Amino acid sequence: MTMLHRDRYFSPDPAVRALARSLYDRVASLPLVCPHGHVDPRMLALDEPFPDPAALIVIPDHYVVRMLYSQGVPMEALGIPRLDGAPVERDPRKIWQRFADHFYLFRGTPSGAWLTHELENVFGIRERLDSRAAMRIYDAIEAQLAKPEFRPRALFERFNIEALCTTDAASDTLEPHRQIQASGWKGVVRPTFRPDLAIDILHPSWRQEIERVSDRSGIDIRDYGSYIRALEDRRAFFKSAGATATDHAAVTPYTAELSRAEVDALFARALAGTATADDLHAFTGHMLMEMARMSVEDGLVMQLHPGSYRNHNDLIFERFGPDRGADIPLATEYTRNLRPLLNKYGNEPGFRLVIFTLDETTFSRELAPLAGHYPALRLGPPWWFFDSIEGMLRFRYAVTETAGIYNTAGFNDDTRAFPSIPARHDVARRVDAQFLADLASRHVIEQDEAEAMIVDLAYNLAKDTYRLGEVRDAAGPTA
Amino acid sequence: MTMLHRDRYFSPDPAVRALARSLYDRVASLPLVCPHGHVDPRMLALDEPFPDPAALIVIPDHYVVRMLYSQGVPMEALGIPRLDGAPVERDPRKIWQRFADHFYLFRGTPSGAWLTHELENVFGIRERLDSRAAMRIYDAIEAQLAKPEFRPRALFERFNIEALCTTDAASDTLEPHRQIQASGWKGVVRPTFRPDLAIDILHPSWRQEIERVSDRSGIDIRDYGSYIRALEDRRAFFKSAGATATDHAAVTPYTAELSRAEVDALFARALAGTATADDLHAFTGHMLMEMARMSVEDGLVMQLHPGSYRNHNDLIFERFGPDRGADIPLATEYTRNLRPLLNKYGNEPGFRLVIFTLDETTFSRELAPLAGHYPALRLGPPWWFFDSIEGMLRFRYAVTETAGIYNTAGFNDDTRAFPSIPARHDVARRVDAQFLADLASRHVIEQDEAEAMIVDLAYNLAKDTYRLGEVRDAAGPTA
Amino acid sequence: MTMLHRDRYFSPDPAVRALARSLYDRVASLPLVCPHGHVDPRMLALDEPFPDPAALIVIPDHYVVRMLYSQGVPMEALGIPRLDGAPVERDPRKIWQRFADHFYLFRGTPSGAWLTHELENVFGIRERLDSRAAMRIYDAIEAQLAKPEFRPRALFERFNIEALCTTDAASDTLEPHRQIQASGWKGVVRPTFRPDLAIDILHPSWRQEIERVSDRSGIDIRDYGSYIRALEDRRAFFKSAGATATDHAAVTPYTAELSRAEVDALFARALAGTATADDLHAFTGHMLMEMARMSVEDGLVMQLHPGSYRNHNDLIFERFGPDRGADIPLATEYTRNLRPLLNKYGNEPGFRLVIFTLDETTFSRELAPLAGHYPALRLGPPWWFFDSIEGMLRFRYAVTETAGIYNTAGFNDDTRAFPSIPARHDVARRVDAQFLADLASRHVIEQDEAEAMIVDLAYNLAKDTYRLGEVRDAAGPTA
Repeated sequence: MTMLHRDRYFSPDPAVRALARSLYDRVASLPLVCPHGHVDPRMLALDEPFPDPAALIVIPDHYVVRMLYSQGVPMEALGIPRLDGAPVERDPRKIWQRFADHFYLFRGTPSGAWLTHELENVFGIRERLDSRAAMRIYDAIEAQLAKPEFRPRALFERFNIEALCTTDAASDTLEPHRQIQASGWKGVVRPTFRPDLAIDILHPSWRQEIERVSDRSGIDIRDYGSYIRALEDRRAFFKSAGATATDHAAVTPYTAELSRAEVDALFARALAGTATADDLHAFTGHMLMEMARMSVEDGLVMQLHPGSYRNHNDLIFERFGPDRGADIPLATEYTRNLRPLLNKYGNEPGFRLVIFTLDETTFSRELAPLAGHYPALRLGPPWWFFDSIEGMLRFRYAVTETAGIYNTAGFNDDTRAFPSIPARHDVARRVDAQFLADLASRHVIEQDEAEAMIVDLAYNLAKDTYRLGEVRDAAGPTA
Repeated sequence: MTMLHRDRYFSPDPAVRALARSLYDRVASLPLVCPHGHVDPRMLALDEPFPDPAALIVIPDHYVVRMLYSQGVPMEALGIPRLDGAPVERDPRKIWQRFADHFYLFRGTPSGAWLTHELENVFGIRERLDSRAAMRIYDAIEAQLAKPEFRPRALFERFNIEALCTTDAASDTLEPHRQIQASGWKGVVRPTFRPDLAIDILHPSWRQEIERVSDRSGIDIRDYGSYIRALEDRRAFFKSAGATATDHAAVTPYTAELSRAEVDALFARALAGTATADDLHAFTGHMLMEMARMSVEDGLVMQLHPGSYRNHNDLIFERFGPDRGADIPLATEYTRNLRPLLNKYGNEPGFRLVIFTLDETTFSRELAPLAGHYPALRLGPPWWFFDSIEGMLRFRYAVTETAGIYNTAGFNDDTRAFPSIPARHDVARRVDAQFLADLASRHVIEQDEAEAMIVDLAYNLAKDTYRLGEVRDAAGPTA
Repeated sequence: MTMLHRDRYFSPDPAVRALARSLYDRVASLPLVCPHGHVDPRMLALDEPFPDPAALIVIPDHYVVRMLYSQGVPMEALGIPRLDGAPVERDPRKIWQRFADHFYLFRGTPSGAWLTHELENVFGIRERLDSRAAMRIYDAIEAQLAKPEFRPRALFERFNIEALCTTDAASDTLEPHRQIQASGWKGVVRPTFRPDLAIDILHPSWRQEIERVSDRSGIDIRDYGSYIRALEDRRAFFKSAGATATDHAAVTPYTAELSRAEVDALFARALAGTATADDLHAFTGHMLMEMARMSVEDGLVMQLHPGSYRNHNDLIFERFGPDRGADIPLATEYTRNLRPLLNKYGNEPGFRLVIFTLDETTFSRELAPLAGHYPALRLGPPWWFFDSIEGMLRFRYAVTETAGIYNTAGFNDDTRAFPSIPARHDVARRVDAQFLADLASRHVIEQDEAEAMIVDLAYNLAKDTYRLGEVRDAAGPTA
């Protein structure tokens, strides 16, 4: 018995389904290219057994926690640690039982699809998670986790991960990456330079981060000039440790260059602790320009993830901290906001900018037209709430007619849930196969084109976009 | 002969269609739960025969009138009364003929689907409405309306309505509701507390409404404090008359609490007739907070319907008054606007807020993420222009992946067109069956899950959301 | 062999496909009504042979150039002339080869579909354009272009174009139109009055255009009053030359009437060269009102195309000029912006306004509700990036339920690529056939209704909307 139908996510039309399946079969076993995600590199450096099922699958997954919370399950009952140290549920079996009791909430959601795939393909569970099966499934996972083949590196190899990029602060030592490389293990784990904290001049920990960046770089940050030099130094360090990309978050994709005098004064205010919200907005827009300039120079691919209202729920943030499922998207404007950056750097042959969005309306209206013109720009895959079957389909139908597939960046799993990585790539490959099968069935493309395109979507585009090595010969562009 | 195909609105794919039909058959005869609508309760209190077909079906239906007007049919020719008393068409047969002459305009629209269903299933008309059939159909309906089984209460019972909620001003006596209860008739008709006029401090009739609320509550509204006490008193009265919910309209979903001093001063300006447009905006945002606070206290479910630009066409408003089909949606922002209200009350276990929108872009971007996090929030069904086959499908595909189905509120018919109620529920049940059949056919969910979910969508979620009694055992959450 | 499947763009479901094909077959050979486009009338006045394949198909097509540029092909390598006269590729074979090398980029795009259709149906090319076939195909096209039956007028007749409307500045002499009429050739080519330059008071060439309008009208423009009289004179001239419509671009659809004193003063500033950006905004909004007033008076159909950020890429604009694929859409608001114009003129029986958008979110939220109410308003077909298979399907599904099909304007090809005209109409007719076949297969409409509606969508609505003559008896409204 299996909970995973062989033809899941394909059209019910028999002819389309057969074609989708044949396209999927071409890429189902290709290595996984993971150019953007949030796996903790220490996990692979230490390679220790995973803890219990609740600690592995429930507690750290904000997709799971948010849905249960939305239906009245207290965070405490799920074992989410409180910042004030007040007691929360400690028994992983009770947490797992609550999760199982509410697993019906995930019907029709990507979390449901991923978890079902993970339970079956990683842990061999072949029954549905519900109240009655909860403890039986818990026991089975617990038994597996004790085995050496369920340690992180063994799973990495079994998952056939070709490269895994992590996300790391500007001040990070990248010590886990060094340890992995020194260990003799062949798994490719690359850092990604994400200087958000070093740029967020109003963040309570900004000064600390600036001090750490000073320490790591050996450049004492005392003004804007030394700040920029220190960040350049850190980028060079990341690059030497294998990084091929940077990543940036912002409330909006506003970009605009300040004069040197303006930014010197602004940075002085930031150091003095007198910067304002307007300063932060201006500085973020300016620093995106600076990061683009550095990417032109050092070749690191620039990623931008704007449009999330972080920590929307004060009570949850104050009690449990960030990343608990309370980040909510905002309407986002790209045409005017990105213009300064694209005007200055978007025609540069060596520059590459990957843009993500949480506002689907921008796909056909702004992002596909921009990506279908500026050489530097590629569209990141559907992000977060849209990394889903319907979300990915809407993305492809919305952008392909204007940008084609070759101005898109392939798939990112974007996850901290390590054992869900194969599930996420599998869903994406199935959805892309279905998309192409639909186009070919309607004779929008020919079948041989679909056969080349599926390799591009499943493998080549991610690798090419993030400069992770040679792509496959079977690729569309070379067919 | 029939104009209603057994499998209408289902996929043409034979396997999907068969599954959709089997899901639909499970719920086709379930009672109708009608938690939000605009049926006049006097109709059921008096239980008098309906007037002629034009007065029943054409004149009061702004969906119908707007379409005919958009294609050049004057309002006067449809018998819409002019505020200035100027003559309009009085002959219902001429009005009906004009309607029939233009019935082709409704091809592919929900009004077309509802009217066809209503003509056939309520009145037994089994031919298409067009110029030639117009008078024949008129005669047939007219003959039916004379029969006792076509009186309002008889139709209510035949329609199998389990509960019907009306919409009533804060000052309403709820006398028709009292008459219905006193009559011994078993039909359940509940009021809904809609204090829009009592909150719209710039409305020409606001002072009158405040006086009426004072009279009804026995609390003389002379300042903000007495105003709030009077509204609380009215809510208690509505609750004692069977209300389980309130309803609120606003141009935007802006929410923000004023200080007591600010709101005291603002309310004094309102009473003095010196309030400004800014005051109205601030007061509306403040009163939504107050209404949420009261809902936390008294348990009435709070509904919010923002984003309609009412009476967009001055000429029509001045000549014919409101609700003539000239209300136009606006882009609407929820993430920032609802934050104050959700931060203060969204984590309250006893609070329930049902949000509607006329801006489909917010479904996946803002509303599903909010509903998939805040325990208090449920998403109302597609409203007004989106209460349609494609509109409902887009809603389900847009929100389910992030919010699941259990953060949605089931179906509302939201209509003043009493005889169209079964048609509206039937379309919704068919669309939900099709949605679930599609998911099951693509193995996104399993068939047994679809079988539980269709009962939730067609019946349980509306009843549970609006606190209208026990739900069915077969429901998804308990399956 | 053919690259064009007989059933392309239809559903893969056999029953839906058969119905779509039967609907398409009803309209496939109807004459082409082309009420809005950018074909150069001199081409038809002179009737000279087309130049080489690159100059005909690659260099002038900004859809093609933008995609190649986005993937790193320099504009210069495609033969796009530089404004500074610097050398660019002159060899049409090398340009064609580069185009062929990158033709895979157009997989899944409307440009790909149109080009494939054009190559096969106009030029008889029955193999895929790629690197190896490039020169063979070039030779074949070149040979065809030398033949008399490939001259513009011969193609016009072979394409079965019933009427072709061009787009012409307010100062245009319409000399090519006069020549065509004087030549004895029977092809119907009508001008369209597009006064954008005469209204853009900040454009470097505005003064020149004003002088030209003065010259042509014989009315010396020295103030606002004479300016308006001159424009009215020009409209009368266009109408006498066969125009039935005007066309207007604007960054936003803002409309608002200035007082006579305000506009007199503003226009004086414009003539003095001291107008500001705010003046331009106000003047554009005012002139849209004036243009509507004139349309009420002279019966010319008014078209409005708002929401494009023109020349987004400074480098491309400075080096190559406008219309090189760097125009990017903006979010656009219609409900508030169009209210002044619709309030003043939207109820006028003789007025017709056709609205286009580059913001798909407005279709269901603003435009369909507006068009489903105001008698004057019709929705233009999906424009630019949305004139595509998926774009047209999304349009129909988004607007039909609220506005029906009879408040839409039929198809416009909107192209300057003359030989692509049949391809564009063919795609539109296929997509509309598929849309109707889907509705009929789901019993949303009946088959006989679909059979009437396809004629309306493919032919009658364009002709009726633009007042281009009598429509066909088989039309839906008269069926």
